[in-house]
Amino acid sequence: MTFETLARALETDSNADDDINREFLATKHAADIAQFLDEHDADTDWRVLNLLDIGRQAEILGYLDRKQQVALARSAPRARLAAVVSEMDADDRADLFNALTEDEQEALLPALAQAEREDIRRLAAYEDGTAGAIMTSDYAVLSPDLSARQALDTLRREAPDKETIYRAYVVDADRKLLGSVRLQDLILAPFNKQIEAIMERDTRAVRVDEDQESVARKIARYDVVALPVIDTDGRIVGIVTHDDALDVITEEATEDFHKAGSVGDLAESVGRASILMLYRARVFWLVLLVFGNIFSGAGIAHFEDIIAAHMALLFFLPLLIASGGNAGSQASTLTVRAMATGEVQLGHLGHMLGREILVAGLLGLTMAMAIYGIGAWRGGLDIALVVSLAMVVIVLAGSLIGLTLPFVLTRIGLDPATASGPLVTSIADVAGVLIYFGIAQTFLF
Amino acid sequence: MTFETLARALETDSNADDDINREFLATKHAADIAQFLDEHDADTDWRVLNLLDIGRQAEILGYLDRKQQVALARSAPRARLAAVVSEMDADDRADLFNALTEDEQEALLPALAQAEREDIRRLAAYEDGTAGAIMTSDYAVLSPDLSARQALDTLRREAPDKETIYRAYVVDADRKLLGSVRLQDLILAPFNKQIEAIMERDTRAVRVDEDQESVARKIARYDVVALPVIDTDGRIVGIVTHDDALDVITEEATEDFHKAGSVGDLAESVGRASILMLYRARVFWLVLLVFGNIFSGAGIAHFEDIIAAHMALLFFLPLLIASGGNAGSQASTLTVRAMATGEVQLGHLGHMLGREILVAGLLGLTMAMAIYGIGAWRGGLDIALVVSLAMVVIVLAGSLIGLTLPFVLTRIGLDPATASGPLVTSIADVAGVLIYFGIAQTFLF
Repeated sequence: MTFETLARALETDSNADDDINREFLATKHAADIAQFLDEHDADTDWRVLNLLDIGRQAEILGYLDRKQQVALARSAPRARLAAVVSEMDADDRADLFNALTEDEQEALLPALAQAEREDIRRLAAYEDGTAGAIMTSDYAVLSPDLSARQALDTLRREAPDKETIYRAYVVDADRKLLGSVRLQDLILAPFNKQIEAIMERDTRAVRVDEDQESVARKIARYDVVALPVIDTDGRIVGIVTHDDALDVITEEATEDFHKAGSVGDLAESVGRASILMLYRARVFWLVLLVFGNIFSGAGIAHFEDIIAAHMALLFFLPLLIASGGNAGSQASTLTVRAMATGEVQLGHLGHMLGREILVAGLLGLTMAMAIYGIGAWRGGLDIALVVSLAMVVIVLAGSLIGLTLPFVLTRIGLDPATASGPLVTSIADVAGVLIYFGIAQTFLF
Repeated sequence: MTFETLARALETDSNADDDINREFLATKHAADIAQFLDEHDADTDWRVLNLLDIGRQAEILGYLDRKQQVALARSAPRARLAAVVSEMDADDRADLFNALTEDEQEALLPALAQAEREDIRRLAAYEDGTAGAIMTSDYAVLSPDLSARQALDTLRREAPDKETIYRAYVVDADRKLLGSVRLQDLILAPFNKQIEAIMERDTRAVRVDEDQESVARKIARYDVVALPVIDTDGRIVGIVTHDDALDVITEEATEDFHKAGSVGDLAESVGRASILMLYRARVFWLVLLVFGNIFSGAGIAHFEDIIAAHMALLFFLPLLIASGGNAGSQASTLTVRAMATGEVQLGHLGHMLGREILVAGLLGLTMAMAIYGIGAWRGGLDIALVVSLAMVVIVLAGSLIGLTLPFVLTRIGLDPATASGPLVTSIADVAGVLIYFGIAQTFLF
């Protein structure tokens, strides 16, 4: 049996195959079932979910696309929805809640138990993009004066409700974070040893308002399964787990990638976004860059006389402009990515500039040699000289613009990722026109 | 005390501060100490390592930059090196081994115990970029007929040597993978329950030659701490852990990002790469694109007469060319990223094309409206008409080129990421020149 035969069985509207379908679903991972549900409508999805126990339903719901989650939430009676939502992981539940309208939220809340209501309210309150927004409240805490055996008993009792007990957090009476214990150290310890003596003290906690990308990078750096999240008083309020870190890193890479191609915010994935969403994500930069390129046009118009006198110059125009843009795009790409991974910071500008001048100088000379011959062939030695000289200066200028712009954007509080691609190219274009015809005017008149 | 005072203390060449330094290092994470070592020379590094016990030394060595690892390996006596290397995690050890020259490898091997020698040889044999190359052999296996209590005892004995025992793998007498058990399920189970009855059967194993990016994506998809790696006979040969998945995803994102900015392979990070490495990574594409842009130049030269007759056309040249390139860059960026995250596959071209024509058509019309006024002002209604019409066609053409190119590259076995940025821009430039002057010639002559 496959997901295709499941789809066909569901179309028949009979319950004859329920047992077979149930058996099939039992062999599949929740993530795979969720993908199947994502591709079908809410009614079909509920028919599938109804074949499973409530815990599995909640697990699958957690893997669903946000849009599909909302569709399912809207097509179910309140009590039915509340039953599944209660079983979801705390962070998934809060995310789903945030995606509902205010009216829907108000309708759902009374159907939930008080503890879950409070939990949702608390998690849903944190700002998007912070540790608070991606953390879960399903973590295990231990008191420092327990013995290893008592601690294991506590975890045994609590485990079914917790997202992970691979690491339990040790807190004092005020829930202030004291340290953490790995489950494997707990089972290795003598039964009567105190938690205080087993725990690691320097648990690297993150603040609840810390940027999600910075949290994800710390999880990667320290190779941990989870990091605890603390409030301003040092009390633990949640944990961020390794799978959330993976999602954040993928999501942020996509965002940076899109920005580098001058595509704006796209809330949905490309495949699911509507025509209008795609239009909106692209039109802003496209139109903005039109106005940037008017400067290039004005530059050319300004040099109409020299162009009219030496039409051969036109042949090299796209080549020179594009080379400056390409060199700039390379320099900004390297800088933007190194900033995103934390390797390059604001203070490194001086050092980077020195290196860039050397690299770009070498590149410019190589490019000049590549086009000197073509210049001589198309327009004679004068043109060849102008074109080669312009190439060196343009590649150098483009590279320095590409390197500097991400630093400038960061300095004024904007995202450096905006700098790669079309924005750098447009600025380098203007510079290219002015440099090219400026040099031409100096040498040919 | 801080790392700066440590650096100063090490400069004095006296051992007076050893105890203080040791105490300070005990409070620091291995990753942070490794960063400090990365920034200092091998001699200083060994002085720091000598303050620590051998297990800690090996842990820190695992976090070091590859280049620095090799520098340390070269500056230590063979026996000293062998002692630390023996204690390293199996995957880190194999990676370090691979970075040494053949002579150095031959010198090191005899100093290691036989089990480690074989382990290194086996792990070092897998091709770069596969599951085999990033997996570790430090995993725990259990027999299906053990009781939960026996299994826990086994893990207690083995734990210190294993990278993770959060999940143990159940194998038959031939090491064929039968399933897996989470440590937390093991401590929850009744002591006399058989492993066979506790284990999850559908453990999603990956093949040893599977692409590392695909493995990392599966770890992200199924939210697991690790995935088992099997050979062609279904025998377990290693595991890939969540922290390796994070590294792979970051690394692949950087690679794609660089390709999108037409930067070639860069083995070192930007900060550590030499001038010559940076030059080599950039020069190939830059020169290649020169030849692409010669076509644009030739296109312009071909239309010299119409340009000479209507010099106002030149004003709009950079604007129109850049708009096609920018729209193309947007379309390719969206496609390339969606392919990298697995959302879009080769078969989706038709569906994507249909949507792109709508989106690009809308964008083209918007852009045409934006420049119609400027066209009328600079060159009269004829020019305005030509420029607006050219804009619609150029944006459409650029977008379709940007969308299609990643599919074409994938189809012929190349990396689609090469398509975003400068390559698309250069092709769109040529198309832009031909479309613009072609339309001008039709309407103005």
